[in-house]
Amino acid sequence: MTTLQMPGPTLGVVGGGQLGRMLAEAASPLGVEVVVLDPTPDCPAAPVARDQIVADFDDEAGIRELAARADVLTFEIELADQDVLERISEDTGTPVHPKPSTLRTIHDKLVQKRELEDAGVPVPPFRAVDSADDIRAAIDDYGAPVMLKARTGGYDGRGNVPVESKEDAEDALESVAGPAMVEAFVEFEREVSVIAVKGDDEVATFPLGENIHEDEILRETIVPARSIEAASERAYEVARDVLEVMDGRGVYGIELFETSGDEILLNEIAPRPHNSGHWTIEGAQSSQFEQHARAVLGWPLGSTELRSPTALTNLLADVTENQDARLRDIDEILETPGAHLHWYGKRTSRPGRKMGHVTVSGSDPDTDVEALLETARELEDALTFTAE
Amino acid sequence: MTTLQMPGPTLGVVGGGQLGRMLAEAASPLGVEVVVLDPTPDCPAAPVARDQIVADFDDEAGIRELAARADVLTFEIELADQDVLERISEDTGTPVHPKPSTLRTIHDKLVQKRELEDAGVPVPPFRAVDSADDIRAAIDDYGAPVMLKARTGGYDGRGNVPVESKEDAEDALESVAGPAMVEAFVEFEREVSVIAVKGDDEVATFPLGENIHEDEILRETIVPARSIEAASERAYEVARDVLEVMDGRGVYGIELFETSGDEILLNEIAPRPHNSGHWTIEGAQSSQFEQHARAVLGWPLGSTELRSPTALTNLLADVTENQDARLRDIDEILETPGAHLHWYGKRTSRPGRKMGHVTVSGSDPDTDVEALLETARELEDALTFTAE
Repeated sequence: MTTLQMPGPTLGVVGGGQLGRMLAEAASPLGVEVVVLDPTPDCPAAPVARDQIVADFDDEAGIRELAARADVLTFEIELADQDVLERISEDTGTPVHPKPSTLRTIHDKLVQKRELEDAGVPVPPFRAVDSADDIRAAIDDYGAPVMLKARTGGYDGRGNVPVESKEDAEDALESVAGPAMVEAFVEFEREVSVIAVKGDDEVATFPLGENIHEDEILRETIVPARSIEAASERAYEVARDVLEVMDGRGVYGIELFETSGDEILLNEIAPRPHNSGHWTIEGAQSSQFEQHARAVLGWPLGSTELRSPTALTNLLADVTENQDARLRDIDEILETPGAHLHWYGKRTSRPGRKMGHVTVSGSDPDTDVEALLETARELEDALTFTAE
Repeated sequence: MTTLQMPGPTLGVVGGGQLGRMLAEAASPLGVEVVVLDPTPDCPAAPVARDQIVADFDDEAGIRELAARADVLTFEIELADQDVLERISEDTGTPVHPKPSTLRTIHDKLVQKRELEDAGVPVPPFRAVDSADDIRAAIDDYGAPVMLKARTGGYDGRGNVPVESKEDAEDALESVAGPAMVEAFVEFEREVSVIAVKGDDEVATFPLGENIHEDEILRETIVPARSIEAASERAYEVARDVLEVMDGRGVYGIELFETSGDEILLNEIAPRPHNSGHWTIEGAQSSQFEQHARAVLGWPLGSTELRSPTALTNLLADVTENQDARLRDIDEILETPGAHLHWYGKRTSRPGRKMGHVTVSGSDPDTDVEALLETARELEDALTFTAE
């Protein structure tokens, strides 16, 4: 039976960005404290964390200090170093969840896709790329365009390059500048995601979210997705199959393609709470951040049921150059029933940087989610990131 | 128009108990930071506050430091010293909300009742007490029993002594040990409360809560209250009249008696978020803590609409002597859909001390609140505060 004792328990989190911040916000009501490790002094999580250790994500001394203060280690960023985490966890006895082996699998998109394919998870056709010839061969096999991906280090669409024709193969490979893989380009009907939670001996999935991207950056998520039920059910099945491959407890953000034939194909996996799951704070019975805290601690998972249909829009800094963070004209958000502002407390607005998000939740379970999305867009349009 | 700039804004909060903790949890998504001042090192708010200044509630140097770091000062405990706050606010230019004059009014229950009565707020018959004769005269006028109250310093029913007969007057007065007043004992049908918010040029009220006390300690709150609509409407009217008397922005907890004749009488006022408003975290569109942050900053207030019927039960330490805080058998809470644990992170369990609370929210607006209360009680019964 789960017992709370004071002080503690403490989560040691590698990374102190907005995910760490929202994790700390969600952990506190449960009596759970958060210490973060992040190289940026006064990172977004710092104001609500018990402490920040200022150190690089792979800094051994820093992570040892984190392990010493924590009951369990976790991470909110894939840049966490699996080898360092594994070694320190073994030395100190402080468990890490998800397991470093999962980071290892996920870090290399080629390894990831191979393991998932072996486990029966439906993935787009893919192959390793050692030369431009491999890209051209992929175009022969899959048809153009194909998607060239850096095997490591990419996120928010960075490191993903569509290749329209064989003539572009050399340039594309050069732009990726490192080990690469290539995938068939999926003609999807919509992009959806399942936020899935792996607990001690249980698994839970949040209702399917539908994601709207722009320039490969996630702009909006609406829940429930506009998928037919069979596609949703298939997405949950695939998510559960993915969790079978993942080692260690925690929340996993599983991005999927839904094809026009209602087929579900895996796109990407994040072994942590995911942008497309932020809607759960207001829209679900318990949030992905609360679930992550519960899961990594080995506590029972909570209800992932939908509370209200919810639309989320990311607040991407609409600035042309770096400047002190500023958000003007928030009154309309503050005054709209069901609207909730989440501002991450980043000190600097950089062009296109995720500075916060807004959710709009319906007043009852039957609220039309497209109307909510419309409201969210209007609220975002009213905002200004600049001084004048 | 409201603008967010980083870093800040910062709320400087006198007091760092559970109210400060929940305020910090609610302020963070809005990009608002909290610094608390509290004499107990590592107070409940400390883990989620930007910083704690360890100082007494009336410590001038400490409050000056708080004022220097804050955009606005507020308090989560009536023990805040109105004179010190007023002086420092004038010296530093950092505003205080609610205003120190409001604390002054509320500190002395006799002054409070007189001002409210003058403003047309319905209060039980009362009079000043200088001697036991005054108590006996009150029994002649109002009938026995009467309620003897310490004019200052009482909370959670402390300092309130029912006097059953004239023979008990001397003993009762002695037990209060200080300036006192006496009130007619109200034969109420139920105790209710309105959490009211005074904004810059607007006022909002949360749906009426019904409070269940035991030994004058608040045990449970259910929302909506089981009052008829006319009584609810009257309660909101009275709450708005009370706010007219109160000076300064913020959340006010207004406890009321509802008599068998559906009459509403004022019981007590807290110039801060109130225990009977904790249900708003899950049950309302925005919580009393978020509203308090908005109000003291002068931002627009949010929606106070009911999101789901909700029952709250306080977790009072069921121990016979002081011991390290411990809460066993929380699994049932964690596993029940709609149930939410709030554990305040206090280091020591003292007999009867408020250690946390549990809410149970319905899945839709029509959920029967009595069933939710039943569930909350079962969850609380399953808990154990002791080691074995």
